[in-house]
Amino acid sequence: MNRDEKFMNMALQLAAKGKGKVFPNPLVGAVLVKNNRVIGRGYHRYFGGNHAEIEAIKNAVQPVSGSDLYVTLEPCDHQGKTPPCTEAIIKAGIKKVYIAMPDPHPLVAGKGIRKLRQYHIPVFSGIAQGKALSLNREYLHYIKTKRPYITLKWAMSLDGKIATKTGQAKWISNSQARKYAHHLRAEAGAIIVGINTVLKDDPSLTVRDIPGARNPVRIILDHHLRIPFKARVLDHRAKSIVVCGRHGSRARGAQLMKQGIEVIQVNRLSDLLEKLANRGIASILVEGGGMVLASFIEETLADKAVVVIAPVIIGGKQAVTPVSGSGIASIKNALHLQDIKIRQLGDNIIIEGNFQ
Amino acid sequence: MNRDEKFMNMALQLAAKGKGKVFPNPLVGAVLVKNNRVIGRGYHRYFGGNHAEIEAIKNAVQPVSGSDLYVTLEPCDHQGKTPPCTEAIIKAGIKKVYIAMPDPHPLVAGKGIRKLRQYHIPVFSGIAQGKALSLNREYLHYIKTKRPYITLKWAMSLDGKIATKTGQAKWISNSQARKYAHHLRAEAGAIIVGINTVLKDDPSLTVRDIPGARNPVRIILDHHLRIPFKARVLDHRAKSIVVCGRHGSRARGAQLMKQGIEVIQVNRLSDLLEKLANRGIASILVEGGGMVLASFIEETLADKAVVVIAPVIIGGKQAVTPVSGSGIASIKNALHLQDIKIRQLGDNIIIEGNFQ
Repeated sequence: MNRDEKFMNMALQLAAKGKGKVFPNPLVGAVLVKNNRVIGRGYHRYFGGNHAEIEAIKNAVQPVSGSDLYVTLEPCDHQGKTPPCTEAIIKAGIKKVYIAMPDPHPLVAGKGIRKLRQYHIPVFSGIAQGKALSLNREYLHYIKTKRPYITLKWAMSLDGKIATKTGQAKWISNSQARKYAHHLRAEAGAIIVGINTVLKDDPSLTVRDIPGARNPVRIILDHHLRIPFKARVLDHRAKSIVVCGRHGSRARGAQLMKQGIEVIQVNRLSDLLEKLANRGIASILVEGGGMVLASFIEETLADKAVVVIAPVIIGGKQAVTPVSGSGIASIKNALHLQDIKIRQLGDNIIIEGNFQ
Repeated sequence: MNRDEKFMNMALQLAAKGKGKVFPNPLVGAVLVKNNRVIGRGYHRYFGGNHAEIEAIKNAVQPVSGSDLYVTLEPCDHQGKTPPCTEAIIKAGIKKVYIAMPDPHPLVAGKGIRKLRQYHIPVFSGIAQGKALSLNREYLHYIKTKRPYITLKWAMSLDGKIATKTGQAKWISNSQARKYAHHLRAEAGAIIVGINTVLKDDPSLTVRDIPGARNPVRIILDHHLRIPFKARVLDHRAKSIVVCGRHGSRARGAQLMKQGIEVIQVNRLSDLLEKLANRGIASILVEGGGMVLASFIEETLADKAVVVIAPVIIGGKQAVTPVSGSGIASIKNALHLQDIKIRQLGDNIIIEGNFQ
């Protein structure tokens, strides 16, 4: 690893600290280097907060003038919630700027690089770009497709069941795997579950056991508005949205709204995702049940699957499997996930893969 | 690793070469050491062939007298298919004997060690014993329980299906995983499948793509003798046994026997396993389908599970899951597998675990 990659890796590690707190913004980290020594570090801490470059300048322990800036994404050149970073970089007298990748966001998209070069600040792009692409996979997907990045998640037994024949599912996975699932929640902009999951398990869908984590928006797909008004998922520990179809009862919808719950009517899943993207939800964790997971897969809206496998045997013809729906008839039509990653958490196995 | 462990590990590696060829005998390897140099190596190559000690003596490149013997299992002291090894050891003038573990077989069980000591040959036991226990797990189980060691095997999709809704299962797993499955067949004394698997897939259940491998006995559980006389599994590339219940048609049974197929009538799975053990079948690979796998699990006759998971999604309410039967009602009653081992073959994941 050369000098530039070393400093960019530091910046990437700082960037990752913002996970779950910055969306729909990207994760960004920055370090300032002078005479081969790091003199300032910063990262984008939360949506609406300072950008990483500004934080690094603010935190510098020496005069910034004459230093090199390593930043994981092209600096912005527009007035958003905060002033343009390019201005601050120019004003601080930074000598050179190294970036991991340009920002594809239409408001940035090369403008930041051009502005710096106009002011005779050399900009070097592409340092540790692979890592930067992977760090901001969800943000990049969101900017490119204008849809949230969709992760499907389920936990199943070694014989492919997510519940016993009586519907019991607590707990197939071990406590480490459940903690990991709470991390996934904390990093997502929203969680989606189907009404059957609410009726069966009455989950609260909040993030637990992770200090400082925020709760994602809880979204319940409930075509006919069957959700009980006292369902835990409607408590006020987090925002909830109930999504119904054309035939949802108006009276029940009105009652939900009176409780402070948002009710959205859509006809298609893709319309819902577009609406959610428009209000800044860049990533969604879909937790089931089988019909909901199948819908995302069948409508090719799924981007990633995270599957927890516990080494237990449940058995039974009537037990519930993770993905339902109409299913394929021929193996050659089976969806084949890519970039498979495996990790062990205790005796549970986590398999992650990307949809094509 | 000390000197003794080093030589015993050599012997263990030799022993493993006999996999799939020696049962119901144990896997045994031996090395002869003189002046710190290996002068002879041997292993038990096939059932009925020389024991490892004899092979090592035969293969020695220097006079054996005065050498040390490292052997992975206590030498036998009885006349079986071959003469007692103790005699050969004494006659050869071997000075010391190192063994990994005593042989629990009732015909050996300490007698070998005692005989050698009577002849003033010191015997050191317990070198690399853990590895030896694991190498001969199936043999030790067989001797202890008088039942074959039962390995359940299935391949499923990431959403827990072993076939599509139309029953297609070829191929969910990748070619490396299928090759591994053929290795498991080659190492087993017998394969068991249910009649539904035969009716649906018409498998031949032979070992393919493994040079020099032998075919295990093919056993079909076919309560009512519904097997077609032309089923591939009844060809003469390997021995086949059809197992029926009391209500199997006599005429069909007679026809099968005329074809040279053995027909066994039993009432209980455990009776079948006892019969098979009595004729020297020490290990069985159970390949499905779901009802057969469930029977072994429900009757607590399963010792190990080998599960191949392919990163594909099949979906569907009607798709087939690996373990059927009555299933558990409450998660706390789920069978929890132990000693979980994971390996990746290409993008397929193999999970292995032991039943308690």
